[in-house]
Amino acid sequence: MKKAVGMEQTHPLFRQVYEFILNRIERGEWRAHDKLPSIRLLADETKVHRLTVFKAYRALAEHGKVYVKDKSGYYVSPDSLLPLDTGEGTVVSSYQLTNPLSDIQRIPAKYQFSQALIDPNLLPNLFLSDYVKKVFDLYPKVMGTYSSVQGDEELRETLSQHFRQHHRLQLSAMELLITSGAQQAINLVARILLGPMDTVLVERPTYSVAMDIFRREGARLIPVEITAQGYDLEKVETLMRKHKPRMFYMNPTHHNPTGYSVPARQRKLLVELAERYRCMLVEDDPFRDMYFAEEPPTPLFAYDTEGWVIYISSFSKYVAPGLRICAVACRFPFMERLITAKSLADNGTPLLNQKIFLHYYTSPRLQQHLGKLRTALQVHKEIMEEELAAAGWEWTAPQGGLNLWVKLPSTLSVEVLFRKSMEQSIAFVPGEILDPLGEMKSWIRLSYSFASEAVLREGMQRLTALSRTL
Amino acid sequence: MKKAVGMEQTHPLFRQVYEFILNRIERGEWRAHDKLPSIRLLADETKVHRLTVFKAYRALAEHGKVYVKDKSGYYVSPDSLLPLDTGEGTVVSSYQLTNPLSDIQRIPAKYQFSQALIDPNLLPNLFLSDYVKKVFDLYPKVMGTYSSVQGDEELRETLSQHFRQHHRLQLSAMELLITSGAQQAINLVARILLGPMDTVLVERPTYSVAMDIFRREGARLIPVEITAQGYDLEKVETLMRKHKPRMFYMNPTHHNPTGYSVPARQRKLLVELAERYRCMLVEDDPFRDMYFAEEPPTPLFAYDTEGWVIYISSFSKYVAPGLRICAVACRFPFMERLITAKSLADNGTPLLNQKIFLHYYTSPRLQQHLGKLRTALQVHKEIMEEELAAAGWEWTAPQGGLNLWVKLPSTLSVEVLFRKSMEQSIAFVPGEILDPLGEMKSWIRLSYSFASEAVLREGMQRLTALSRTL
Repeated sequence: MKKAVGMEQTHPLFRQVYEFILNRIERGEWRAHDKLPSIRLLADETKVHRLTVFKAYRALAEHGKVYVKDKSGYYVSPDSLLPLDTGEGTVVSSYQLTNPLSDIQRIPAKYQFSQALIDPNLLPNLFLSDYVKKVFDLYPKVMGTYSSVQGDEELRETLSQHFRQHHRLQLSAMELLITSGAQQAINLVARILLGPMDTVLVERPTYSVAMDIFRREGARLIPVEITAQGYDLEKVETLMRKHKPRMFYMNPTHHNPTGYSVPARQRKLLVELAERYRCMLVEDDPFRDMYFAEEPPTPLFAYDTEGWVIYISSFSKYVAPGLRICAVACRFPFMERLITAKSLADNGTPLLNQKIFLHYYTSPRLQQHLGKLRTALQVHKEIMEEELAAAGWEWTAPQGGLNLWVKLPSTLSVEVLFRKSMEQSIAFVPGEILDPLGEMKSWIRLSYSFASEAVLREGMQRLTALSRTL
Repeated sequence: MKKAVGMEQTHPLFRQVYEFILNRIERGEWRAHDKLPSIRLLADETKVHRLTVFKAYRALAEHGKVYVKDKSGYYVSPDSLLPLDTGEGTVVSSYQLTNPLSDIQRIPAKYQFSQALIDPNLLPNLFLSDYVKKVFDLYPKVMGTYSSVQGDEELRETLSQHFRQHHRLQLSAMELLITSGAQQAINLVARILLGPMDTVLVERPTYSVAMDIFRREGARLIPVEITAQGYDLEKVETLMRKHKPRMFYMNPTHHNPTGYSVPARQRKLLVELAERYRCMLVEDDPFRDMYFAEEPPTPLFAYDTEGWVIYISSFSKYVAPGLRICAVACRFPFMERLITAKSLADNGTPLLNQKIFLHYYTSPRLQQHLGKLRTALQVHKEIMEEELAAAGWEWTAPQGGLNLWVKLPSTLSVEVLFRKSMEQSIAFVPGEILDPLGEMKSWIRLSYSFASEAVLREGMQRLTALSRTL
């Protein structure tokens, strides 16, 4: 995987040509021992530089997909279908779909530090069922009824009030759409805005699944470094002018994985840049309410008057993750497209989940719960930090969120540590996956929110002990 | 809309060139009064016949997007951005996303014949809540827990047993994935298999939202006529040989909208054709259990040994539509891709919905309920048929499903009838929307399942009475 990741990320164009050729081979349009089109021909067809095609052919040769006959060009290898045929018979070619983060998280682990999720024991699951019974008394037919595509109006009304009161967002219920988790929101926005060869600004590092979604649309990723001070706005402007990106996907508040927050003064300027360069800002904001000392700055959406910010607000991480309720705020006419995209995706989020969420969310208990949760998360964070300090690893203490972004001693190979940890049932996320450039090889993301305090302490001690043996 | 529909459907290639040009204009790459590339140049770039580009320019001129200067070529109109700018300020260009069916169904109607849904009063909503309480007792942390991406194992185990027992499908739980409704399943399969210029076989008529999904991927639709006898298999084979379609999207059992079922002998042959021409059969099967007289033939999936059938089995229409639970059966390695696509789409269907579904589905009550439901649907169907007969409209009595496919007298304009009906709060689906060729202008789809008996009778009488006044 490492090679592939690095490849597609540092050379998106080259990667696309690579995929283009491979896809035709896999679909049997070019068969074993067929002569492939000349570099010149393919460069014309795909509208890229010949050097790029040359690189693609070279990589395909390296990977055994094609072979070279001296002077006469490139030919399809007889075994180039094998990688897809996993012995189960059928060979189905498919478009680029990868999700390394999900692959890691699908492996069960006793010491689970790869999930930016909250320990179910920190969530008030038990009394939730009261609200559920209430929902069934109030809406006896909820199981037999579809939600509107945009989402339950009662819920959107309540959330728009919440946003107005808490975050000074000027919003009506019409400007909110309910999705099944932030993941779906990112996916729908990408469906609308991105196509092959489009460019997208992403933070470096960033949430890798978002990158996977953008790549599936054929988009090229352009990294924007994020630091404790935010972004280099001059650089952002240059990138916007030069590449005309369709959107800038950002997580400016308790950023995943670094925990940084983009300062208020930058937020206003970013909205101005977005407007000037017609680049949508997709503001992913799942960690806002999970702060330790002080409330984070207002969302960028609050500064936007012209409709250049799409605000993805997912409370589900701490309200009730199992419900997968997320709200997307944007202006018309974009909202019209979002509704259509949602109607094609799943025709609306289940009404039951929306109603349960609504009644729980509006309960006084939630605020009490939230206070307790903040304290608990801080305790978790500090346990992890103690063990990191003991090991002499480097990190910046975050103001909120669920993750620590940790730099390991350069003598340590993350790749080896990852493999050995998995053997000991310790899971974390290698930084490379979160880097649009596929570098950051001495960084890892450690989530402190999922494991219980005892398991967290024990797992961190095992991890750091393990690192000393390498 | 009509024009657009006809256009994209009868000339997918032409439509794509049209979109290609429009997109660049909307993205400001070609600005007002810019000279556009010559037909020759654009034909080379987009690899289509010059006549196609000519047609696209002509249509763009008709729609006021471009204008002609005698002899010197085509230029961008100054107002070509207006259609996207709906007065709200921002202009965001987006990729082709349409869903006319959903647009119709978003309009509230008293006489609702456009929804192929079951009247919530026919569903045993009330005692469902018992199962919900049971679920919370069994899984107190269900609200705080994510499902696995593939879906709850207990549910997949139960469903695979059901498929083995009832439909002779050789299936393991590993070969099932849970989605949020059949809609999402179709969408995920399309994400994996389809890209620009790929071809897809679709029935004529068919479920329009599926066509919208395939078009969003840039695929070209090739119609296959469906009749009471099934398909013309010789034609199907010719189309597979000629166009190398990636997939054949079909709804062979109580087909929507016609109610036809493809006979058993054709099913086996279709699987052989799929294997020979490497064309995936996507078998959408939501109406199987809603038959009147006798059980329908076995799913195509049962005949498939090589993994060329993807089986989409949605019970949610009659079990509990509000839960949006659907199961997709397919073989490896395709399943691996499906899991990744699902992980990118929403990272897994809510566990709560899966658990409630599981406990309700395995209850003895379901079978009793199903028997009653079949009778109720038949009564609904007969009420509608009585009114159709009185009006002298033509239809073939279906063996199951939720719809009647009705041919109106050629003297009657569906377009006018539709507009007038909407004014009287009567909703139905114009056949044109369900036709990949955008024709079938004297056909309509009437769903008899959603309205109560009284409303059904009254609405049909109003509709037929209205038609006499036109």
